[in-house]
Amino acid sequence: MNAQKNTRTIIFVAMRDGTMVSKSTAKFIRSLQIKKYRQKAQAFLVEGEKSVAELLQSHLHIDKLVAAPEFIEKYGTMVNKKVAEPLEASPAEISSLGSFKTNEAALAVVRMPDSKPAFLPEGRWGLILDDVRNPGNLGTIIRIADWYGFHSVICSRTCADFFNPKTIAATMGSFSRIVPAYASLPDLLGSVSVPVYGAYLEGQDIHKAQALKPGWLVMGNESTGIRDELDPFISQPITIPGQGQAESLNVAIATAVLCDNLVRLSKET
Amino acid sequence: MNAQKNTRTIIFVAMRDGTMVSKSTAKFIRSLQIKKYRQKAQAFLVEGEKSVAELLQSHLHIDKLVAAPEFIEKYGTMVNKKVAEPLEASPAEISSLGSFKTNEAALAVVRMPDSKPAFLPEGRWGLILDDVRNPGNLGTIIRIADWYGFHSVICSRTCADFFNPKTIAATMGSFSRIVPAYASLPDLLGSVSVPVYGAYLEGQDIHKAQALKPGWLVMGNESTGIRDELDPFISQPITIPGQGQAESLNVAIATAVLCDNLVRLSKET
Repeated sequence: MNAQKNTRTIIFVAMRDGTMVSKSTAKFIRSLQIKKYRQKAQAFLVEGEKSVAELLQSHLHIDKLVAAPEFIEKYGTMVNKKVAEPLEASPAEISSLGSFKTNEAALAVVRMPDSKPAFLPEGRWGLILDDVRNPGNLGTIIRIADWYGFHSVICSRTCADFFNPKTIAATMGSFSRIVPAYASLPDLLGSVSVPVYGAYLEGQDIHKAQALKPGWLVMGNESTGIRDELDPFISQPITIPGQGQAESLNVAIATAVLCDNLVRLSKET
Repeated sequence: MNAQKNTRTIIFVAMRDGTMVSKSTAKFIRSLQIKKYRQKAQAFLVEGEKSVAELLQSHLHIDKLVAAPEFIEKYGTMVNKKVAEPLEASPAEISSLGSFKTNEAALAVVRMPDSKPAFLPEGRWGLILDDVRNPGNLGTIIRIADWYGFHSVICSRTCADFFNPKTIAATMGSFSRIVPAYASLPDLLGSVSVPVYGAYLEGQDIHKAQALKPGWLVMGNESTGIRDELDPFISQPITIPGQGQAESLNVAIATAVLCDNLVRLSKET
């Protein structure tokens, strides 16, 4: 950045606000890295340029925005529309508030939105996650569900927390469009009337499946798959046919491949 | 672990060998976290229980094995067959030698194997990676190529290093079956006679493709895709049809979805 741009930035911020992050605000923001405090505050963190930029274009409510002058300059119009008093901070300060090793752009405290009800409109797909423990996997899966236009995502209560900063980061912005509901899966699955597809190692070869009706796709735990107690609710066990010698695929990879096949096969009906 | 088992372990190791890791060996092992030293030694690290167990069953040559007594006891027969003098170390020592935060099992120094020549037998698939920079993505992609029975993987010279410990870990054992070759992609692609499929945002909808002939699939960089200079060599640009609002898929996820579609469509010929 050249000197002239730097000067303009500082003047812009000073004119606009100049508010700094107080010690108590910093303490509150840091506390949101921990689930207990997120739940108490009903708020979560969104970190990094791409995610905060997506956030500024979403319907989500921003409680606080802490941003570097460069970020405020670059996204000025969007920031003005959405945030009354952005807090200015240096990249080092922003990094110290959040979970990222380095964050030179921005960080926001956001109200937890309501999740969509566990209901599928006619012709739409939904995803059910049974005990997906890794926050990165959960976030990647939310991004996949968003790509394939899934209507809803339901998590068992033992899944990773959607509002974990690692999950939010891994969604690459999809957190603003898909918010999973947490539910007791046997209770939920006991009452559905659409098909329930489940990922197993020994199900129907999905490449040999014919046109099929949209419904729920159930994916299981990273190591142990879908829990036995859910087996009675799975109407169609399905499998990705492997040709090589790898034992398994990562759960996010398997979710993508099955979503792709199911969406393709339901377009054929 | 109970006291009796512990005693047996210690006796077993003491009888067998009792060799400890010397300071100079520790220094050498640590140096293999850096590419320059891996290339000089023509050796790389394999870390963690699952990966080392896969290694013990592979054809790869193990220069050194550093393992906890529990690991040597559990995999005793396999270790005896493959390693003349396993070095005994505590979990803390093993962790200090490698790149994992914690490694309570084992770590091995392995000879770099030759990669397969960049040649596809009739009816087999191959994968070409153009500038895939992230070691975790590269490893995950190797695991996917292994799952789908791809014959070869070729990397541009700007791709992440296959022998980076993060890549090796992400392959989840597939490193012992698929070793990519590094090559100049324009030179390579100029001489192939099979179809070359390339992942683009605006190619043919892969869900609408008909039966097709096996060949090479080219995947591009995480942010910028396939480089322009390779465009003339791509005979069939292909695309994953998205239904939702996510902008893109992670390169490993996209690779899995395209491999799955291509393998399915080539079974139909």
